[in-house]
Amino acid sequence: MGDVISLAHGSGGEASRKLVEEIVGKYLKNDIIDSLDDSAVLNLPAGRVAFTTDSYVVDPVFFPGGDIGSLAVNGTVNDLAMVGAVPAAITLGLILEEGLALADLHRILESVKRVSDEAGVIVAGGDTKVVERGSADRIFVNTSGVGTVPEGIDISSSNAKPGDVVILSGSIGDHGIAVLSKREGIDFETGIESDTAPLNGMVAAMLGVTPSIHAMRDPTRGGLATSLNEIAHKSGVGIVIDEADVPVKPEVMQACEMLGFDPFYVANEGKLVAFMPRAKADAVLQAIKSAAYGQDAAIIGEVTADNPRMVVLDTAVGGRRILSPLSGELLPRIC
Amino acid sequence: MGDVISLAHGSGGEASRKLVEEIVGKYLKNDIIDSLDDSAVLNLPAGRVAFTTDSYVVDPVFFPGGDIGSLAVNGTVNDLAMVGAVPAAITLGLILEEGLALADLHRILESVKRVSDEAGVIVAGGDTKVVERGSADRIFVNTSGVGTVPEGIDISSSNAKPGDVVILSGSIGDHGIAVLSKREGIDFETGIESDTAPLNGMVAAMLGVTPSIHAMRDPTRGGLATSLNEIAHKSGVGIVIDEADVPVKPEVMQACEMLGFDPFYVANEGKLVAFMPRAKADAVLQAIKSAAYGQDAAIIGEVTADNPRMVVLDTAVGGRRILSPLSGELLPRIC
Repeated sequence: MGDVISLAHGSGGEASRKLVEEIVGKYLKNDIIDSLDDSAVLNLPAGRVAFTTDSYVVDPVFFPGGDIGSLAVNGTVNDLAMVGAVPAAITLGLILEEGLALADLHRILESVKRVSDEAGVIVAGGDTKVVERGSADRIFVNTSGVGTVPEGIDISSSNAKPGDVVILSGSIGDHGIAVLSKREGIDFETGIESDTAPLNGMVAAMLGVTPSIHAMRDPTRGGLATSLNEIAHKSGVGIVIDEADVPVKPEVMQACEMLGFDPFYVANEGKLVAFMPRAKADAVLQAIKSAAYGQDAAIIGEVTADNPRMVVLDTAVGGRRILSPLSGELLPRIC
Repeated sequence: MGDVISLAHGSGGEASRKLVEEIVGKYLKNDIIDSLDDSAVLNLPAGRVAFTTDSYVVDPVFFPGGDIGSLAVNGTVNDLAMVGAVPAAITLGLILEEGLALADLHRILESVKRVSDEAGVIVAGGDTKVVERGSADRIFVNTSGVGTVPEGIDISSSNAKPGDVVILSGSIGDHGIAVLSKREGIDFETGIESDTAPLNGMVAAMLGVTPSIHAMRDPTRGGLATSLNEIAHKSGVGIVIDEADVPVKPEVMQACEMLGFDPFYVANEGKLVAFMPRAKADAVLQAIKSAAYGQDAAIIGEVTADNPRMVVLDTAVGGRRILSPLSGELLPRIC
């Protein structure tokens, strides 16, 4: 088969079959994917079904803390978890550029396997297409996912309520800065790594404390500012954030200052922001801190009836400013 | 926003929001997609959940009889239908190349809307990424889908049984030849069109006759020969096909002869091949012929205990030959 992807790998014939069975199958073998049927057929627990999709075009494909494979699995697991669903299965759609090194594909599939095992989701199906050299950039990955939302859970961007407390599960900006520094060949001495991680365990711990989480989001493209603005807009509420309480690693802050970015707009891939009644906030915060990836969690603000559809930042220097949604281009191909 | 896609449309900020709300939303507005939550939450009927994904990289994007939008929706609807599922919802993942004309995007989304309405599936979620000029080829589309498999249905590539009759729902090779002729600028006088179409209505009619469909496949990439070989292999049976009974349009046959293709290996996007007990075959054939897209259906062969894992063709000239799986490259980017 040679050491690189060729157009024959995408033709649907013998080379395609070998690619799927011998390379993809090496990492993702299971009874469902082995059936080679046009659809996977799943026995899901009772409940409403959560369904989501994301395509990943991150550049570079490998970056400090992760790669396009781990990013794609974590991203879709997290999208399911953000509506309170228990992730069950994902699909993996690959678009490969002719000439992609098979060694790179192996490395990416190994990440997919490792992270899906950690998150406890099965890779239930997939699809592989190959395009000519110059018609894609190495590899694009689509992951879609399904899971079940248990009875009594109703988490939505439109459900935040005045009086709710806002919890952030850790520091912001790590992923965007890690990818950008690798892409631009900037070597920050302190080594900034992507935070890409599956958050379904954390969400299960939170929902174990209370089913009354009102809204939840993982602040990816557009960063925390964009997620907060979307929730303020959809819920018709104001949000006040205390800047001093938002964790930012010193090395990320330094990099942002050097590059001219505001960490509030930089992408995260292993963080969540959650809205809940004040009475539950301390217990939920403790659950997050005890969960994997949540040790730096903090209460960062609250929801107000005042200033509907606006996010207000109480700044570290004592003033107030509007945290507006991102406009224009910040970082293309960050996920 | 200008008349073409720019990198800002993919940044996750204001331009992304406008693209999703004003362009995608123009065609695909519904309560679920409007929630802007990270996952759609669906109330599906009881039953096992079918789940599938496909990425589409067809070149050219617009071809006689369809475009990448209709192809993507039909393909995923059909993958669900091939395991007997009633399609419920699909997601739409777009990878756009900087510089794509917005008019082309409108035209593609209009196709997505039209075909998903015909198939009766909701577009429950989506994702849009933008890459720099030269890092993709205009537009790639991923569609994933979910549906429910009613109680008592068990259709799988591994369930074909000796004695089963093989029905094909219509002529083969139309899609592949339509795409190739457009790509290569060959103008066949007779006008060959892609057969891209949703087959869930046809499958519902078949299952209305009998739940005892054993195996079913839509012969896309790799054509009918590849689908038959996969079923022979997975079910451990032989399949004998009578070449004279396989419908091929004269203009498609002519084009295949001119271009050096065997229609058995050319992709279809609106056909199915189904395996069932002989006692049910005539009634199922009538149901297919009465359904949309099934008027040219025919019984084309049978399953044997002899020659396990092989497909044998009784040729039109009276001989017998093995119909082997496709090896090597036939037609890249045909879907």
